[in-house]
Amino acid sequence: MKLMRVTDPDQVLKIIKERFNPLESETLVLENAGGCYLSDNIYAPENIPDFNRSTVDGYAVAAKDTFGAGEGIPAMLECIGEVLMGEPAPPISPGQCCLVHTGGMLPEGADAMIMVEDTEVTGTMVQSFRQVAPGENVIHRGEDLKKGDPALTKGHLLRAPEIGLLASLGITDVAVHRRPKVGFFSTGDELVDYSRPKLEPGQIRDSNAPALLYLARQLGAGAEYGGILPDRFKAFLEQSRSMLTEVDLLVFSGGSSVGTRDYTARTMQELGQPGLLVEGISIQPGKPTLLANCGGKPVLGLPGHPVSALNIFKIFGRAIINRLAGQAEKQLKPTVRATLSRNISSRSGRTDYVRVKLEPAAEGLAAVPVFGRSGMLRTLSEADGVLIIPAEKEGLGAGELVEVEVWN
Amino acid sequence: MKLMRVTDPDQVLKIIKERFNPLESETLVLENAGGCYLSDNIYAPENIPDFNRSTVDGYAVAAKDTFGAGEGIPAMLECIGEVLMGEPAPPISPGQCCLVHTGGMLPEGADAMIMVEDTEVTGTMVQSFRQVAPGENVIHRGEDLKKGDPALTKGHLLRAPEIGLLASLGITDVAVHRRPKVGFFSTGDELVDYSRPKLEPGQIRDSNAPALLYLARQLGAGAEYGGILPDRFKAFLEQSRSMLTEVDLLVFSGGSSVGTRDYTARTMQELGQPGLLVEGISIQPGKPTLLANCGGKPVLGLPGHPVSALNIFKIFGRAIINRLAGQAEKQLKPTVRATLSRNISSRSGRTDYVRVKLEPAAEGLAAVPVFGRSGMLRTLSEADGVLIIPAEKEGLGAGELVEVEVWN
Repeated sequence: MKLMRVTDPDQVLKIIKERFNPLESETLVLENAGGCYLSDNIYAPENIPDFNRSTVDGYAVAAKDTFGAGEGIPAMLECIGEVLMGEPAPPISPGQCCLVHTGGMLPEGADAMIMVEDTEVTGTMVQSFRQVAPGENVIHRGEDLKKGDPALTKGHLLRAPEIGLLASLGITDVAVHRRPKVGFFSTGDELVDYSRPKLEPGQIRDSNAPALLYLARQLGAGAEYGGILPDRFKAFLEQSRSMLTEVDLLVFSGGSSVGTRDYTARTMQELGQPGLLVEGISIQPGKPTLLANCGGKPVLGLPGHPVSALNIFKIFGRAIINRLAGQAEKQLKPTVRATLSRNISSRSGRTDYVRVKLEPAAEGLAAVPVFGRSGMLRTLSEADGVLIIPAEKEGLGAGELVEVEVWN
Repeated sequence: MKLMRVTDPDQVLKIIKERFNPLESETLVLENAGGCYLSDNIYAPENIPDFNRSTVDGYAVAAKDTFGAGEGIPAMLECIGEVLMGEPAPPISPGQCCLVHTGGMLPEGADAMIMVEDTEVTGTMVQSFRQVAPGENVIHRGEDLKKGDPALTKGHLLRAPEIGLLASLGITDVAVHRRPKVGFFSTGDELVDYSRPKLEPGQIRDSNAPALLYLARQLGAGAEYGGILPDRFKAFLEQSRSMLTEVDLLVFSGGSSVGTRDYTARTMQELGQPGLLVEGISIQPGKPTLLANCGGKPVLGLPGHPVSALNIFKIFGRAIINRLAGQAEKQLKPTVRATLSRNISSRSGRTDYVRVKLEPAAEGLAAVPVFGRSGMLRTLSEADGVLIIPAEKEGLGAGELVEVEVWN
């Protein structure tokens, strides 16, 4: 029997980065561009803010008019009025001041703001019991961004702050890499649609399809389901070929038998050049994973066991989606730290993903492994996340501090 | 001048939990229920799996027929055929075996699987070079879930594994707490719609609205935008009252002047009992935050500065949305660990959220603070996340290990 040639998980991530490219650019209205990656640099078309703005409620002054003022010796200023929000400010002369609200425009002649708390008003006269420095309590024109400055660079993810930043510049349309579309097939004659109420002996509901479709959408991709492929090679290949023209990433999942795996591998070789790149990954759960490049498009063959399929798609499906979506280099992996509740053994040379529940402990959290075979979805639904035992380790000991990647 | 009465951030989270309740239940089709929280326990309507299933490719046997077998002394078994995927398996008699693929059904009379790697086939005879124990390489009927067992409990988040688990049980509809709908108003006469190409002096584009709408949708809520409210109390109140009937959480944002803040506070008092709960939070950025309970519905008044508004909505808007959505107790906060690049001071008694960039360092990552005033969105778009300086600390030192909450 042929041994499976396995590739190291980090090597697989490297292959994904090297062999596949971000999708073409498209222009989206800003409201629909959240979660996308910029396909171009964006330069500020104007200053932000475009006028000197107060950061406090108080009086706009020439700072030098307050020099020397203090508790006992207030500076006396003539108040010439109020700057209405959204209105231009009338200029002030030396010795004068003007009421400005937070966010309001500073008048010409003023270079600082006295906070209202530091003043006392009698008629039109304002006493300031503090001196202010030039620029105090003011955001200057162009201080956040100067006209022509790079506001955001290519590959930057559009999160809420970026959407706000672009909106403040009046940018309503934005060029981003097109979001990838993922096509899914389930494989295996034992599978029936999950809505089937009554199963015959030997049948299993196709639980991977709805779970993977949700995961792909969570990752920002479009997701299309092609149904359950029969274990007949010709139909398998034809339906795959047709779907591949419609999507950016094709995924097979569900068949756990060697027969189905063989069809998947043969299909990958026929769908386009150069074909199979990865025939197995040194990871647990999820070793029997296939990855191909079929005419420039990635094709992923997930292992049949539900937990393995989800684990692999979460790691490598995500990496492919992010690569196609145009994610820049930086990738952060937030974790929750916890104390391992018991020893776990692991085979050296294989990266282990151990499902764990996080439970309150004397100090912080305890990571309690949820054991069960990789076919068992219940174990994954009981787990809050996974902890990774690197290939070079032969296990982890009770009491060790571990980092848990939370599934959400 | 009246001092702002501030509430501790943890106390605000406690108030949110105590004063507001999960929304009513609704039934969704499984494909649309991802990200929702269950409003009821779900019990398994059948066994998973519903038959004894092989976890390997190999031969189904009665384990006792292999006892004593080894490298030199194979057990001899008569192979009576193959179990086709999705088909019921014919029974076997003592001394017999049957080819079963991974995921296939074990025949009656078999209680274990010999892996194909451990066998040699000659005609209809199979030699096993290993002995197997009863149950080896088999998932038993009901092993993942037994009929009647609790599959998932009330308050559980439906992630990909849960969707897979429910699909495997044939559950197509699921009772969840209704997803909250958030209504947003921007406030302040200085604001104009962000699509306005040319600003007049003193005007500012409303950048908070699109950023907050995206954030709310990211958090799984529906989001509706009511436009920019004028700084005129009657219109302010009437439009707010009308929107509040349509949504589960009402949010005011954008106005940074004391006048707007006063309108917001007065509106909260008039919209419903008991009214204002929080008049300020001991947090930076975001201190001038208002929170009210208006006839059972939460109303949140965000500070006007964009960074403050996003910071507050990310913490307390999220807490409110999750509470209304029915999230159970457990809340995990994944972070990235990094070494602080320089000293940061912080005022004791106030929780500080410091924006940081994460950069590769000699060992791991460095957290580099991005300084700037809370009006400056650029500082937030340059930051990968925030690190929290608790109220009891007066700062953090260069070289300290810190935990950074990543913004995505």
